Amino acid sequence: MTTTDVAAALAQARAQHERYLDGFKTFLRIPSISTDPAYQAEIERAARWLVQEMERIGLEHCRIIPTAGHPVVYGDWLHAGADRPTVLIYAHYDVQPVDPRELWHSDPFEPVEREGKLFARGAIDDKVGVFVNLKALEAILSATGRLPVNVKLLFEGEEEMGSPHMTDFVREQRELLAADLLLISDGGSEPDQPVIDTALRGIVAAEVTVSGPSHDLHSGTYGGIVHNPAHLVGRIIAALHDANGRVAIPGFYDDVAPLSAVERELLAAQEAAMRETLQQQAGVRAFWGPAEATLLERATALPTCDVNGLYGGYAGPGGKTIIPARAGFKVSMRLVPNQDPQRIAEQFSAFVRQFATETLDVEVQILALGWWARLLTEGRAVEALKRAYVATWGKAPALHREGGSIPVMGAIQRELGLPMTTLGHGIGRNVHAPNEFLYLEYFGRGIATTIHFLYNLAELADGRTVI
Amino acid sequence: MTTTDVAAALAQARAQHERYLDGFKTFLRIPSISTDPAYQAEIERAARWLVQEMERIGLEHCRIIPTAGHPVVYGDWLHAGADRPTVLIYAHYDVQPVDPRELWHSDPFEPVEREGKLFARGAIDDKVGVFVNLKALEAILSATGRLPVNVKLLFEGEEEMGSPHMTDFVREQRELLAADLLLISDGGSEPDQPVIDTALRGIVAAEVTVSGPSHDLHSGTYGGIVHNPAHLVGRIIAALHDANGRVAIPGFYDDVAPLSAVERELLAAQEAAMRETLQQQAGVRAFWGPAEATLLERATALPTCDVNGLYGGYAGPGGKTIIPARAGFKVSMRLVPNQDPQRIAEQFSAFVRQFATETLDVEVQILALGWWARLLTEGRAVEALKRAYVATWGKAPALHREGGSIPVMGAIQRELGLPMTTLGHGIGRNVHAPNEFLYLEYFGRGIATTIHFLYNLAELADGRTVI
Repeated sequence: MTTTDVAAALAQARAQHERYLDGFKTFLRIPSISTDPAYQAEIERAARWLVQEMERIGLEHCRIIPTAGHPVVYGDWLHAGADRPTVLIYAHYDVQPVDPRELWHSDPFEPVEREGKLFARGAIDDKVGVFVNLKALEAILSATGRLPVNVKLLFEGEEEMGSPHMTDFVREQRELLAADLLLISDGGSEPDQPVIDTALRGIVAAEVTVSGPSHDLHSGTYGGIVHNPAHLVGRIIAALHDANGRVAIPGFYDDVAPLSAVERELLAAQEAAMRETLQQQAGVRAFWGPAEATLLERATALPTCDVNGLYGGYAGPGGKTIIPARAGFKVSMRLVPNQDPQRIAEQFSAFVRQFATETLDVEVQILALGWWARLLTEGRAVEALKRAYVATWGKAPALHREGGSIPVMGAIQRELGLPMTTLGHGIGRNVHAPNEFLYLEYFGRGIATTIHFLYNLAELADGRTVI
Repeated sequence: MTTTDVAAALAQARAQHERYLDGFKTFLRIPSISTDPAYQAEIERAARWLVQEMERIGLEHCRIIPTAGHPVVYGDWLHAGADRPTVLIYAHYDVQPVDPRELWHSDPFEPVEREGKLFARGAIDDKVGVFVNLKALEAILSATGRLPVNVKLLFEGEEEMGSPHMTDFVREQRELLAADLLLISDGGSEPDQPVIDTALRGIVAAEVTVSGPSHDLHSGTYGGIVHNPAHLVGRIIAALHDANGRVAIPGFYDDVAPLSAVERELLAAQEAAMRETLQQQAGVRAFWGPAEATLLERATALPTCDVNGLYGGYAGPGGKTIIPARAGFKVSMRLVPNQDPQRIAEQFSAFVRQFATETLDVEVQILALGWWARLLTEGRAVEALKRAYVATWGKAPALHREGGSIPVMGAIQRELGLPMTTLGHGIGRNVHAPNEFLYLEYFGRGIATTIHFLYNLAELADGRTVI
């Protein structure tokens, strides 16, 4: 490995830029929505397409590995030598649903370039993470015939549904996933400031259904005598938070670890800049939340409980004078060290079920459980990342606590004990929302950063030791 | 007019039964959903179809009368003589939406006969009211060449959306609608017990929308710092009732008139039987509501507030971890003497708007306002109805307070001062719900009852006086 190899790989990536981008658009056209069973065949098509792409690039052992849910896509290249580290690269090929569809300015699954942006579902979350890594490896392999480190690729197909089967998968595949470093390519950075995540929140996602009469009833005939399921849904949602915005589920905060002084200072230093960025992106007049914590502490270091959707009865144009037979809501809770997702799920379920009455049934279904994770904050791997960002962005990355969740990460950390860091390529806007887009210049820049990172890691690692 | 005339008209109705029923099915096939603008053309088609049908029967002045909303269909036959009463017959030709469509066992707009039932949207609410009256008049006119009383027909096209423009219509058409009695053909009876309504509740229908961020947000990034509109929807809904189920809107009960001792006794006498019927039809384990009133008092003589539907965020399969940009709900309040719908709408709006915060906007839209009505409890018209029911059902009708609303009735009573009574033909199940059906035998029986009633009224009336 020489500086020549790096330069050759970077030159190859630049030369192939249009072809790589075309390939990305082909990938984006597959509507691999994991959460909706109607798209099952598309998930499988995306997985098959990836395996073919990885084989073409020259990766090995490329295959679809079934799980009890959506399949994992795996491939590797392990010829860098036993004295070189093995990097397990994670990304996910599934995407969020597109509702509300009518707010998209173009087809979510027909990528459109406009003013330096690439609009498509998955453009930043997280098909870009899958594809930028593949193109970095393709550029290196086609330019030099070998990779500077051993690489394993793990592409998940159910991240957007909370990775319900990935903990089992990780447990069953300990040997296959053995590595010296886990590189998470999910999430992204601000365009003017690369970031390395130092923490991820865990998650519990659930659905609550309240049911009463056997069918929708006329509100004139039954109003005043039949208990309305939508009313109990309102009461349950209202009870989830106290007047100060703290989650009111008994025991919810019991296991929350206080931030260290260093962590608190780090967040305080970012508060002013992030406040402005977040407010502009969210399009809100003002922020909200328990006053005893700073904005960034609430956004990243404290647990939350948010209703993601509610339903029941008639929601079309005009009115319909019924008492709905059932109503419900979906909810996601973000967890922090040292909350146990299973315990939180039980506390939530018990709290909600106590609202059941003689007149109305309350059901709770847990949709997803995921552990929080602690990531690297220093060491050789972080240094390799920093140098890569300086080389391609001209700027050192900021250390960032992430408020989001990648449930499988917590599972991998707990099961495999791997050191973890992040190299996210989703630099754009409207994640999980209509008109998701990638700033196009970060497609090529992400490939270059990844190339630099892999060579830096080979250079900095002490044998296989990366921390 | 002779007994021979009655017999001839009844014989004609029996002879033409199949043809009349075919015509009813043709009428039911027109999806005249008033509340959804997508069906505007179907509403107009239904109105045109009715005018043709009325002209064919031999009615006069048949026409579509535009309103600021859906059109009214009018026709009359006024040759019974100035010494005979004029009956204004009301029914509505619009129908409720069909959601949830997937719970229908057959196409809502393709009538299906099964086990003595006729399944279709509108089969009992209220195309049957329109059509049974037309067939009664057709049978009499074709058998005898004349009607025993003067008749005006008023068919509304926006009852299911709360009659937003009918008060203006009634005010503008005082002369056209002048009559000695208003006969309401909406609602129905139990198969084994005909009823005459003695009261209708009024209504206020509204929609509440809570909005915050400019677009759906990722609940990982913004959980804990952005006020979730769905949470405020929950709080508002929870605040609509107190712990005892009483409506908690300040001032809501201020103008509620207490029942007279006679009214209370009448309801008490029906309580046991109605409890069983209502519970079976509603499919509930137990009833609900403020304990200080009886079941029938709550269902008919006290005001209510029911959420008819709620929405916001993701309601599809699985989960989607967002904070929705907006959420909302639809609500209908049933009113009783002497509540003023306008005042209740203002109280509701003020109550809900006070939940707006620095972080979230709250909007209230009033969808419909309708006055309660007091109907005849005795007199010649009621006697004419009683004799008609005895002749066709073999049973005298029960006097019944109706919990539902026909907003235009309150308007007609207040504007025109007409005495009102009811002859409802919707004898079936699942009003406003999937699989609405009519017990088929009541189609012909309704025609016969109407024929008897019109002749009885001519016989009992003292000149034009019917009360």
